[in-house]
Amino acid sequence: MTKYVYTFAQGHAEGSGDMKALLGGKGAGLAEMCRLGLPVPPGFTITTEVCALYSAQGTYPEGLAAQVEAGLRAMEEAVGGGVRFGDPERPLLVSVRSGARVSMPGMMDTVLNLGLNDRTVEGLARMSRNRRFAFDAYRRFVQMYGDVVLGLKPEGPHEEDPFEALLREQKLRTGAVEDTDLSAADLEDLVQRFKAEIRRRTGADFPDDPTEQLWGAIGAVFRSWDNPRAVTYRRLYGIPQSAGTAVNIQAMVFGNLGNDCGTGVAFTRDPSTGVRRLYGEFLLNAQGEDVVAGTRTPRPVAELKDILPAAYNELVEVGERLERHFREMQDIEFTIQHGRLWMLQTRTGKRSGRAMVKIAVDMVREGLLTEQEALLRVDAQKMEELLHPSIDPEADKEVLGKGLPASPGAATGQVVFSAAAAEEMARAGHRVILVRMETSPEDIHGMKAAQGILTARGGMTSHAAVVARGMGKCCVVGAAGLQIDYAKQQLSIGGVTVRRGEVITLDGNTGEILRGEVAMSAAQVQNDPDYATLMSWVDRARRLRVRANADTPLDARTARRFGAEGIGLCRTEHMFFQPERILAVRQMILAPDMEGRRRALDKIVPMQREDFVAIFTEMAGLPVNIRLLDPPLHEFLPHTDEELAPVAEALGLDIERVRAQRELLEEQNPMLGHRGCRLGITYPEIYEAQVQAIVEAAKIVAERGLQVYPEIMIPLVSHEAELRRLRQLVERVAARVLSGGPAVPLSIGTMIELPRACLVADRIAQVADFFSFGTNDLTQTTLGLSRDDAALFLPRYLELGLYEADPFVRLDEDGVGALVAMAVRGGRAARPQLKAGICGEHGGDPRSVAFFDSIGLDYVSCSPFRVPIARLAAAQAALRREQAS
Amino acid sequence: MTKYVYTFAQGHAEGSGDMKALLGGKGAGLAEMCRLGLPVPPGFTITTEVCALYSAQGTYPEGLAAQVEAGLRAMEEAVGGGVRFGDPERPLLVSVRSGARVSMPGMMDTVLNLGLNDRTVEGLARMSRNRRFAFDAYRRFVQMYGDVVLGLKPEGPHEEDPFEALLREQKLRTGAVEDTDLSAADLEDLVQRFKAEIRRRTGADFPDDPTEQLWGAIGAVFRSWDNPRAVTYRRLYGIPQSAGTAVNIQAMVFGNLGNDCGTGVAFTRDPSTGVRRLYGEFLLNAQGEDVVAGTRTPRPVAELKDILPAAYNELVEVGERLERHFREMQDIEFTIQHGRLWMLQTRTGKRSGRAMVKIAVDMVREGLLTEQEALLRVDAQKMEELLHPSIDPEADKEVLGKGLPASPGAATGQVVFSAAAAEEMARAGHRVILVRMETSPEDIHGMKAAQGILTARGGMTSHAAVVARGMGKCCVVGAAGLQIDYAKQQLSIGGVTVRRGEVITLDGNTGEILRGEVAMSAAQVQNDPDYATLMSWVDRARRLRVRANADTPLDARTARRFGAEGIGLCRTEHMFFQPERILAVRQMILAPDMEGRRRALDKIVPMQREDFVAIFTEMAGLPVNIRLLDPPLHEFLPHTDEELAPVAEALGLDIERVRAQRELLEEQNPMLGHRGCRLGITYPEIYEAQVQAIVEAAKIVAERGLQVYPEIMIPLVSHEAELRRLRQLVERVAARVLSGGPAVPLSIGTMIELPRACLVADRIAQVADFFSFGTNDLTQTTLGLSRDDAALFLPRYLELGLYEADPFVRLDEDGVGALVAMAVRGGRAARPQLKAGICGEHGGDPRSVAFFDSIGLDYVSCSPFRVPIARLAAAQAALRREQAS
Repeated sequence: MTKYVYTFAQGHAEGSGDMKALLGGKGAGLAEMCRLGLPVPPGFTITTEVCALYSAQGTYPEGLAAQVEAGLRAMEEAVGGGVRFGDPERPLLVSVRSGARVSMPGMMDTVLNLGLNDRTVEGLARMSRNRRFAFDAYRRFVQMYGDVVLGLKPEGPHEEDPFEALLREQKLRTGAVEDTDLSAADLEDLVQRFKAEIRRRTGADFPDDPTEQLWGAIGAVFRSWDNPRAVTYRRLYGIPQSAGTAVNIQAMVFGNLGNDCGTGVAFTRDPSTGVRRLYGEFLLNAQGEDVVAGTRTPRPVAELKDILPAAYNELVEVGERLERHFREMQDIEFTIQHGRLWMLQTRTGKRSGRAMVKIAVDMVREGLLTEQEALLRVDAQKMEELLHPSIDPEADKEVLGKGLPASPGAATGQVVFSAAAAEEMARAGHRVILVRMETSPEDIHGMKAAQGILTARGGMTSHAAVVARGMGKCCVVGAAGLQIDYAKQQLSIGGVTVRRGEVITLDGNTGEILRGEVAMSAAQVQNDPDYATLMSWVDRARRLRVRANADTPLDARTARRFGAEGIGLCRTEHMFFQPERILAVRQMILAPDMEGRRRALDKIVPMQREDFVAIFTEMAGLPVNIRLLDPPLHEFLPHTDEELAPVAEALGLDIERVRAQRELLEEQNPMLGHRGCRLGITYPEIYEAQVQAIVEAAKIVAERGLQVYPEIMIPLVSHEAELRRLRQLVERVAARVLSGGPAVPLSIGTMIELPRACLVADRIAQVADFFSFGTNDLTQTTLGLSRDDAALFLPRYLELGLYEADPFVRLDEDGVGALVAMAVRGGRAARPQLKAGICGEHGGDPRSVAFFDSIGLDYVSCSPFRVPIARLAAAQAALRREQAS
Repeated sequence: MTKYVYTFAQGHAEGSGDMKALLGGKGAGLAEMCRLGLPVPPGFTITTEVCALYSAQGTYPEGLAAQVEAGLRAMEEAVGGGVRFGDPERPLLVSVRSGARVSMPGMMDTVLNLGLNDRTVEGLARMSRNRRFAFDAYRRFVQMYGDVVLGLKPEGPHEEDPFEALLREQKLRTGAVEDTDLSAADLEDLVQRFKAEIRRRTGADFPDDPTEQLWGAIGAVFRSWDNPRAVTYRRLYGIPQSAGTAVNIQAMVFGNLGNDCGTGVAFTRDPSTGVRRLYGEFLLNAQGEDVVAGTRTPRPVAELKDILPAAYNELVEVGERLERHFREMQDIEFTIQHGRLWMLQTRTGKRSGRAMVKIAVDMVREGLLTEQEALLRVDAQKMEELLHPSIDPEADKEVLGKGLPASPGAATGQVVFSAAAAEEMARAGHRVILVRMETSPEDIHGMKAAQGILTARGGMTSHAAVVARGMGKCCVVGAAGLQIDYAKQQLSIGGVTVRRGEVITLDGNTGEILRGEVAMSAAQVQNDPDYATLMSWVDRARRLRVRANADTPLDARTARRFGAEGIGLCRTEHMFFQPERILAVRQMILAPDMEGRRRALDKIVPMQREDFVAIFTEMAGLPVNIRLLDPPLHEFLPHTDEELAPVAEALGLDIERVRAQRELLEEQNPMLGHRGCRLGITYPEIYEAQVQAIVEAAKIVAERGLQVYPEIMIPLVSHEAELRRLRQLVERVAARVLSGGPAVPLSIGTMIELPRACLVADRIAQVADFFSFGTNDLTQTTLGLSRDDAALFLPRYLELGLYEADPFVRLDEDGVGALVAMAVRGGRAARPQLKAGICGEHGGDPRSVAFFDSIGLDYVSCSPFRVPIARLAAAQAALRREQAS
């Protein structure tokens, strides 16, 4: 006979803390506390297996009823004093709680005081010598059972909860002000009114039989596993639908039997600061749901010390004991009945990013954890909070709508609808939020000027998202329902219209768009000694190096501050978009011949050289990987007629000519078009000019006595012949520039971003000093998925569970990852000393970082603001690998 | 000491026929003829290695001079009679000819009579007893040497050749009408005038020393290897730049010593019909260049039988001997000196497609070849000629311009600029050529109505190219310099304007656009018994099955006629574009909800069912693979406002609403967008409707007693979860439709067209009955190369030799091929009985077919008109595999 029921009572339990899959989180925690000898009301857990069987077959497995019956008998035994479930003299009351492995919104939570009926309530009144308490418990039970098991809801959108309505009427009728003003008789009458309402609504009597009540509650828990909200939640969070929930049935203890009673929740450390002290709140003379209901204001748990010192001291001791046992900060629920402490739950406590770091570091100091263990406890993703300002969790906020949280942090400012307006207002000292349908490279200066960016379209790797992350700037993209009227200079969302100049706030951690200014807390990483300590352990533990993607000297400085060990990707095209340069760039593109292009390039070279001098100086002593021009030429061209006109004029060309040229450059699938090294092949003079600027800059900086390690990266190579040809070009220009100057260690390699490059990596490696995997583009081609267009179907894919995660956020290990691994093997076989890194967005995703570590890459490169996260993820990956081996 | 010089003389040779790489084609042929004892003037060959060394270092290798000297001595010996090179009494004259492995335009060809100067000419006069002959030879030598070695060219664009000018003056001066009217003295004088002109132009005297003359000619041959035209030619035809040319130096024989002398060229079989007879032409009393010059009209070689019967009979016998020896039709050059035959060259003769087939079949009948050998001799690509009409090679033509030969054949018709006009004029009985910037699915009906299609943009796999090939219709795409003015209804190309209604002719084999109507010959495959014989051998030899890509019942019938063994790809979207259906399709796309889409689909189902009934009937007994809807929805939407208006009206929607919806569906990179199975996932009702139409049609045809083998193919799968979900959908609909009806063997599989699908093929195979590789899309994603946009750089890639071939024409074996092979292995590992085929354009490319055979695919599928070529290629691949094993 399969065991479906696991009993527990103080000092012994059939289950244990490591049986979360079978007993759920709550059940496992209760069992473990019993084993530790902590004061836990006795009870038993029905396993998650029963849920799965019930969900599949609609019936309970054979033998369950008998096991539940035996569990009740054991509970009666443990409670002692002759109590029996359903006994009219000495009734045992129980609580019924769901308990999945992970707590989940939408599921049935709790029914208290189960076992009461018109007969047992009299027994309870006699036992407690408190008739009012007994009928209050009865009233609460019928209400809770009616709500969560029988599903009584308000009848219309403007109705209130039916039980609350009856309670209100009863108070009116009796002249009571507070619930506590109702007498035992009033409550007795109220119970009958509740039951009458239940009969009216459901057509059936309220079940008086305690056993029938119990099975009703058990069935409700199991059915709630399959309710749509819970199903959707599991889909969204990747929880298997087959996991199931457990049901915990436990003897009741009462916090509402008088002023030596109470109930509360507490953390063993402060969850927002991490400071080591019992932190939480309680209510005297109350049952659990009173804390939740919010009708009475709970008091800080520290005050319990003066009121019920013995219970308080025991609670502190229990907390410390649990922390030592689990070696983790705990979130506990307790009830005090006549001065005696009872533990109802313990679980790992949620905490802020700042607390997470402090607790990890403190626990090492306290000898609870080793450095390595502490590192593995830290959630790399959550580190984000420390690196950016964030919305104050206590702040009042009006949510207008929601988009994708493309770049973390929070930002407040006046709404503007163009890059020019953003710059202008920022110059005038205003903080602005730039709102666009989507951004393009021409908006970059506006993005720089803005506090945050909001777009209606685009996904997690859209232009706005990528650029904003690079800038460490809060950004929300793809906001569904956001309508922008450029002409009227206003947006509308969630039924609210916001005009230019009105203030909104963006939450880049949640994607929320908030009305007006909302309080926020500043980035917490500066001067945080715990953070510094943690990161020193991180750097000791990791194998993988971490670089940053940085396009400007400012980016480079930020990257270095966050611990980047070089630049893994410096995109030269961003330099082309600066307003004073774009004219020369456009002149180059529209020049009728190579001579014309060369003349235009001659103007660009000194500007690029200046950029590189500054970047090399910032990164002195560290490698700087510079990618030659990558995007299709047409991206640089003017779009509207208003933009076209001045360009045509400056070039002395007919506007028709410029328009025709632009159309010629227009592509059906620019992502698969004339870009990357294909530009370098067809217009070698462009790459020659860029290489000249890079090498001249390196020479200048080297002559100043600084160490420069330039790496020149050729993008979009798919065939070794392309790289061979362009390598020759780079070497030719470099030899010319460096002739007679200082020795500059120049390294030439390629971006591996096409499946073909991975397949012939051995041949490409013969002419490459390094590979840098461009996993954004590699994901696009391997999956045949345009990141700009995926919004039409990717959300549906995630919802249906067809993809586990957005492949532009977390690396698709089976597909893209397999190609990367293949390329690393192939490349190293041909050139054992080949340097290999990754510079796609995945370089900042902790799970992807672990994968890159496992296949032996030398480094990852990510946005400057994600460098600490990548460093931590790299350390965790190395530690896990060590553990596994 | 490396051997640089290989001598040959009648009966023996240091080289042989299989040394083409070292001796060039001509040198190897001469050596082989000597070994056979055929009459060949003695001589020697300087190897291609010398060319490579000379080209790299600019000097000759040590020892070459001595070996050449020894070669001359051997030649003197073989000629006998005391002749010596440079001897004033008995001078030996030589010819100097280049001879690469493959003949090549732009290279120096021939210098005859080398060794003459003012002294040796007197010896020649005495030896030949013909002073006029001697000075004519001298005159010719100086002229040829001046032309090809010293590079004397006309001085301006309107000048004539300097030597021709002097010759003309001399005739004027002496009153001669023909060259033959000039006396020995006139010619002697002319030689001095030639030399004076050379001195004037080059500043140096004409070299009198025969040895200096010889090295001058050798150097000119080697230098011509590197001239730009030859370099470009090699790049275009994939001939290694390092191969080099050989130089052949041979004792002169003279066809111009009188009327018992002559010179000519001949084929051992008729190169245009394949009939077995000596076919060629000759000139009496002439030297080789007279045939080329075209000043005298050569006579058919058969006439030689009466004039010089002995030489003729020997020529016939030599031809037969060479054919038996090489077991191949030969192209020979000969000279007759005083009735004695001398062979100057033999090589494999070029022939028409028709001759190719006849010769192969005849040679088997004659016992020269086995069936297998004959099959391997046939050029699969050249079979194309037999399957389509072609431009008469003899026809006069005015070439206006050139595009890519996208679909073979030839077509003449009146120019029209829209699909509607094409249909209208075709209905009125006119033949039309549809000219468009590029075509889109909406043009299909116009393409059907037209004789041929011409586009200004697009590559070998553009829409126009793919559709035209499918239709077996002549098509030229991407015509550089073709300007189309839709408003004025005219095109201009090559400086010529062609108005609507004027006639042009397209040559789909060369890509030429010709003015007016040009004579053509009809397709030759019908009723050709040799073709039928050959194809019966083909089908015996091959392993690979061949199917056709066919979208309509007519396509299916054509495919079956060409021997297709099923349909490998039936694209359902083409059915959607029919004018009477497009409205329902647009209604479906623009419907605001699923209900609306279902209603629209209900109209489409009966139409699609009807199509499938007809196709299943045509293909009774054979498998029919049907791909569910693949292209992005926006392709079906109206583009211009004129197109939008009626749709909006029919739908009862605002035109603004329709326009907004269209813009919503617009994609940045449609190739990587919301298409294929992604549509089936997000709009399951579309696939449900299609499956319903297919299965209902199969049921109807099965009920009529015909065998149907439907294969339902899900496109663009990259994750097994997609296929699993859609397979369930197909099975659900099929079970519903077939319930209670006849058993229909339904097979469900997927198109493998994304790199990720290849990488996880083992998992996908678990839910797939078959894989069909869509190598067009797989090429696009693997190489990151949009076929629509590749025109901006792909030509340059081919020119530079970065790609060996257009990867959309010939499969990229190292990249795309590696993925296909990987997927076949992975798929078969998971499901050993997995059926695997390919339905991309590569299925009709012979070299790609060989690759597909080698990796064990079950079938290839191609345009109906390429089915015979694929069958042949499959047979050749199987035979070569057998040979290799």
